[in-house]
Amino acid sequence: MELPVLVIGNKNYSSWSLRPWLALKQAGFAFEEVRISLDSSETRAQILAYSPSGKVPVLTHGKLRIWESLAICEYVAEQLPEAGLWPADPAVRAVARAASCEMHAGFAALRAGMPMDTRARHTHWPMPPAVMDDIDRIANLWRRCRMEYGNGGDFLFGRFTIADAMYAPVVTRFISYGVLLDEDLGQYCEALLALAPFQRWLEEARREIETIDIPRP
Amino acid sequence: MELPVLVIGNKNYSSWSLRPWLALKQAGFAFEEVRISLDSSETRAQILAYSPSGKVPVLTHGKLRIWESLAICEYVAEQLPEAGLWPADPAVRAVARAASCEMHAGFAALRAGMPMDTRARHTHWPMPPAVMDDIDRIANLWRRCRMEYGNGGDFLFGRFTIADAMYAPVVTRFISYGVLLDEDLGQYCEALLALAPFQRWLEEARREIETIDIPRP
Repeated sequence: MELPVLVIGNKNYSSWSLRPWLALKQAGFAFEEVRISLDSSETRAQILAYSPSGKVPVLTHGKLRIWESLAICEYVAEQLPEAGLWPADPAVRAVARAASCEMHAGFAALRAGMPMDTRARHTHWPMPPAVMDDIDRIANLWRRCRMEYGNGGDFLFGRFTIADAMYAPVVTRFISYGVLLDEDLGQYCEALLALAPFQRWLEEARREIETIDIPRP
Repeated sequence: MELPVLVIGNKNYSSWSLRPWLALKQAGFAFEEVRISLDSSETRAQILAYSPSGKVPVLTHGKLRIWESLAICEYVAEQLPEAGLWPADPAVRAVARAASCEMHAGFAALRAGMPMDTRARHTHWPMPPAVMDDIDRIANLWRRCRMEYGNGGDFLFGRFTIADAMYAPVVTRFISYGVLLDEDLGQYCEALLALAPFQRWLEEARREIETIDIPRP
């Protein structure tokens, strides 16, 4: 069978693409990458050729189509159990899944008010109260996971897990929009950013050429 | 250890509570139930006593807190593998997870435009185009799952799985707001509604007393 193909959007803007891409790279899962520019008149047709929901990311593996970021991560966690993409303990794994699900379905204000743009550096970005509430909740969640389950490791649950991949685009947002964190959470963000695949993604985002620049607010 | 406790909201309105409740009942998972009325001035404090995100549902099991519907379902699928809450085949399981994740994070127009109200029966409910798009996507997704993976069974993937639990509140919406489906999908909705725990939930929703009625649009 041919290599699985992960179809992603622009590396600078597509936060949903970054999540499984980072998890799959960290796990050592072999895949080819197809990048679809999200700002072209062909975008929708191009994505629908791969993804039944019309959205990226999607992982294709033979006839199989997995069209949701978290489901892609779960699939690879099952395919490569030795990669430890989830915590080994069932109770800790349940918390890691809850943290991942909260990111997957939540934080709408933060996602709309601070769109991922890894190249941007803003100093006075307006933060409505709903965005501040999302930031507070994320900081509390990270702190709690690290205190209760981190075992002094670099990541939310000690070693890198899917939960870290889910929050990776939040780390780039905090940098782009100048969100300040306490020392422990700052170290967490640095550890995540220092991962070689994350560095590679950000470097590719820096060099990425768009056909049309997505308008900024 | 004491029984796990599933904290839920109003049975008539809380679609997110229905999802894991139905999955846990179908799996035969033993739990106690705590219902918090979502329309009282005490609601937020009552929920925060159980749930770090301030939202229902949450499953507590000893010191463990699992505060997301899909993560609760995953936990119970792991605790009771013999219940078959996910399809046994890894590829089919990946598709079932994608379908579940799409419901978990998506269909915002449908969720906002057709809020769950199991007792309501509307005949001329306004459906903006974005709601119609969500309905079309859900119908296509259901049809595709049943055709490709249903094996002639009653549910999306043949036997009942978490994916069916995730879409259970959509079935009640389709009835409440008069959404018409083709024969195959109509039979799917009937099969889901006929499940004894789903009938019990709807009966309890009918008898439910609210302190203050949530205003209708």
